[in-house]
Amino acid sequence: MTRNSTITLKTIREAAKRIHGYVLRTPVVQSLNVGNLAGAEVFFKCENQQHIGAFKSRGACNAVFSLSEDEAAAGVVAHSSGNHAAALARAAQLRGITAHIVMPHDSATVKIDAVRGYGVEPTFCEPDSDSRQAAADKVIAATGATFIHPFNDERVIAGQGTTALELLEEVPDLDAIVVPVGGGGLLSGTLIAAKSLNPHIKVFAAEPEWADDAFRSFESGSIEAPVRHDTIADGLRTCLGTLTFPVIQELVDEVLLVSEEQIATATLAMMFQAKIFAEPSGAVPLAAVMQNKSRFADQRIGIIVSGGNLDPSTLHRLISGGNT
Amino acid sequence: MTRNSTITLKTIREAAKRIHGYVLRTPVVQSLNVGNLAGAEVFFKCENQQHIGAFKSRGACNAVFSLSEDEAAAGVVAHSSGNHAAALARAAQLRGITAHIVMPHDSATVKIDAVRGYGVEPTFCEPDSDSRQAAADKVIAATGATFIHPFNDERVIAGQGTTALELLEEVPDLDAIVVPVGGGGLLSGTLIAAKSLNPHIKVFAAEPEWADDAFRSFESGSIEAPVRHDTIADGLRTCLGTLTFPVIQELVDEVLLVSEEQIATATLAMMFQAKIFAEPSGAVPLAAVMQNKSRFADQRIGIIVSGGNLDPSTLHRLISGGNT
Repeated sequence: MTRNSTITLKTIREAAKRIHGYVLRTPVVQSLNVGNLAGAEVFFKCENQQHIGAFKSRGACNAVFSLSEDEAAAGVVAHSSGNHAAALARAAQLRGITAHIVMPHDSATVKIDAVRGYGVEPTFCEPDSDSRQAAADKVIAATGATFIHPFNDERVIAGQGTTALELLEEVPDLDAIVVPVGGGGLLSGTLIAAKSLNPHIKVFAAEPEWADDAFRSFESGSIEAPVRHDTIADGLRTCLGTLTFPVIQELVDEVLLVSEEQIATATLAMMFQAKIFAEPSGAVPLAAVMQNKSRFADQRIGIIVSGGNLDPSTLHRLISGGNT
Repeated sequence: MTRNSTITLKTIREAAKRIHGYVLRTPVVQSLNVGNLAGAEVFFKCENQQHIGAFKSRGACNAVFSLSEDEAAAGVVAHSSGNHAAALARAAQLRGITAHIVMPHDSATVKIDAVRGYGVEPTFCEPDSDSRQAAADKVIAATGATFIHPFNDERVIAGQGTTALELLEEVPDLDAIVVPVGGGGLLSGTLIAAKSLNPHIKVFAAEPEWADDAFRSFESGSIEAPVRHDTIADGLRTCLGTLTFPVIQELVDEVLLVSEEQIATATLAMMFQAKIFAEPSGAVPLAAVMQNKSRFADQRIGIIVSGGNLDPSTLHRLISGGNT
């Protein structure tokens, strides 16, 4: 049904079947307290409780289990400083194949340890994107491993789309779904799944003002780069990909921008009101709902909580900020 | 099947039917990370995400919806400084009857506001137990309202027992369930439900060393009073009741004591590893599992997370303590 992608509802359903047993069916939690704050009925799809603490497990598992035996034998490779690294290491371990993970040497210790926890010793590189790609290319040349991009990959996008399938199975009559957007894998997968199941459903992207590249791309009609890299929603700092942008451009209803203050408020509201432990990136959709109350008034809203990998120092900063 | 109570599996199943639609079926979340830490398979029953943020909604709803029309017309009354107050106010609002809530004047603002949120203006009293009971008795004399005790009430105990029914429906083959114990309503309800469904299942109570009255009661054979009231697990500071103690004495496998440090560690492990936002009382069972690893090694353990009403200042204290 999408003009701009070969991914269909069928592809996403096949992905759901392929990754069944390797990823969790995460809970959908309704919070009356947060609903009262937001003036709408809100249903949280809790990917913060997914394996590795983020939806990234879905795409990585679908990619790894899509490989032929021959491809799998040569292993997989990715460069990532974040959740995709751990998700791919875990997926490879589940299939019993080799994963090569290129990480900038200044990656967070907790992310490096997560990769090591799945039996992979990362290959370290300089933190710029050229060095990351060069290190990955070197691995590919030496081993023939398959490169798995964190979002610009159809297998990954289809995997991420399974989140929306589950959400709509549990709450079929949603008026809208709100999804955080970084590289756009989760958003484009959600768009294809949700709009195929229900052409009347609205799907909104939520993005930090401080990482407003998707908003600007949607306005200008071509992929724009981020201009700053310091939003607290650290999972959303990347720009869109050539496979995700056209889907977003065609299907998204609107990209909603949120302030850093609203992200902090939403992260704490999720904890103290809904008892959901989300990372700031995962609270960006709630921030968008709270910042656009009239648009969502009295509607039934699905909110995809993308992850829960909040480190103690960030939590300390949030709590000390007094945004409770 | 219990010698010491008229509550049976049938009573608890009737309670489940009665409160259906008024309470949430909360998620059961498995955490591999916490399982690795604990050396066991752990399944969290997330009553932190129950309405009012605690299992107390179950007992309060069962009590209120058990009343005859005549009883209901005269209203209900309770004294509570905590979650039972909000739970009863909410249950009464759902049935459209009057709730009289007696609260010590030094109750936490957040608890007072919660009661007001359900349309009830609390009656304030001095913070000692005689004043609380006297204020409740005065309401009863004036209105004929039914007194609903937070735990020493068969309707309340049966309601709390529905938590274990749901947990065992989702994960029937548990080796053990670990439950926090304060007044013993949740524990005795769990004991009757779980041991009726599976006589081989172990049920452990988890209790702070600093509120070890249930441990001492189990040892001595009669209800012992707490000797200190300063555990961070503030939901577990009360002593057992005349209806809960005999059930616990007959059926519980053991009362496990945990240190304050272990409670803090478990609360933070639940956040950062399992992404579950629990109050310290709700983390006491995990603390007991982590402090008794050899007893639980490689078993499948159900952990009842009793509540998530953690206030910002307590969270700040936990994070600053560096127990991450």
